[in-house]
Order: sequence, then C-alpha cells, then structure tokens
Amino acid sequence: MNALIILAHGSRREESNIEIKNLANKVKELAGSEYNIIDYAYLEIAKPSLLNCIDNLIKEGTKNINVLPYFLNSGIHVTKDIPKIIETASIKYPDCHFKVSNCIGLTEEMPATILNHARL
Amino acid sequence: MNALIILAHGSRREESNIEIKNLANKVKELAGSEYNIIDYAYLEIAKPSLLNCIDNLIKEGTKNINVLPYFLNSGIHVTKDIPKIIETASIKYPDCHFKVSNCIGLTEEMPATILNHARL
Repeated sequence: MNALIILAHGSRREESNIEIKNLANKVKELAGSEYNIIDYAYLEIAKPSLLNCIDNLIKEGTKNINVLPYFLNSGIHVTKDIPKIIETASIKYPDCHFKVSNCIGLTEEMPATILNHARL
Repeated sequence: MNALIILAHGSRREESNIEIKNLANKVKELAGSEYNIIDYAYLEIAKPSLLNCIDNLIKEGTKNINVLPYFLNSGIHVTKDIPKIIETASIKYPDCHFKVSNCIGLTEEMPATILNHARL
C-alpha cells in the first residue's frame, strides 16, 4: 500500500486549514489508482501532525509514503524540520519506505501554472 | 503596455527571496510576448515592495498590471492587505488598469501540479 501526504504549514485561520483539506480531496479525485491513500497533515499549529498522520497510515498497512511539502520556498521548514521528522518516522517504522519531495514552489511546472492562472 | 507582478510574501532568508527572483525569470522565458514586463515584488520584509514595483512599471509606461499573489492560502494578506495596496495604487494611478488574481494555491491546476511533482 502506498500513500501521498500533502504537508502544509498549518494556520491559526481555520479557513486556510480547510483549504488544504479541500485540496487533498481534489488531488484524491484526480489521482485515480496511483495511491491507495491521499492524506494531509500540518507541520505546525493545526492537526493532524505529520507524525500522527504517518502513525495512522502505518496502522492501515501503508508501506510506501510520499511526503509532498506544500510550501513555496525551500526554507528551514523544508530543509531541516521536515527531514528531521521523517528521520524519526524512519527509525520508528523501518519497514516503511519514505520519500520526501521538494517543496511545491520549486516544481518545474510552476512557471506555466502561474501564467495559466494569471489568464483567468 | 502590460505587466505581470509575481507578488510573494518576502522572507528574512535571502535564498527564499532569490527563489522568487529566479521564478520570475523562468516565467519571463516562458511567457513570450504575452506581457511586456514580468516583475516581482514582496509584501513584507524584502524589497521591492508592491507599491515601489508599481511606481517603476508606471514610469516605464505600463497601463495594465496583473498582480499574481504567490501565496498558498487565501489568508489576511491575500484577502485584505493586497487589495488595500491595490486600492491605493488605483487612486494614485487612475489611468492604469489593475487586476489581482486569486492566490496561486487556489488555482485549478494545483491538484495536477501536485501529482506530477510527487512523481519526480
């Protein structure tokens, strides 16, 4: 079983957290059979935390987890905090394979996504 | 003359600000003749500010400015702070047409962008 976790920063503003939940639902609709589970988690402030999300996925039998940092820049959260949490998770669950993508802001598609979005 | 401004939050971490500058350059390469100018600005911390960026574009003869908020969520910055600055700019430059896009995180392409990025 494989899973994709969309990992956002987390906000004190509940509407922003709900936007992440809605985004995860849209990704789920689009993904078809590519992932068994598409989930979301927050690095700070909101719940579930990344570790709690991983705990739940492992309980459900997940063996491959892809963490996608939903951040625009490769700051400390992306370069230090997230890898540290994944290191902890890898020690706790040695039979699970973890992959951490680069942050979404640095994806190669972003320039085209920006231009398309600006046209609307 | 028309211009697109990629408006980021701005960071104390200079590398993050440089990522925005590099992104604007990539958008420029991809845009062809769609815009006369593609520029970037920061809402806080870093420079140029949005108003300074607009001042410069107007000096260069720009009559249409599209501001693209490079933010993941529709928080206070997107719903209040940016519209307020654009209101000020519209009063200062009544002959220029301003359009403010929704934040990039809410673009319809985002679920597909996430799935494609996670495959890398």
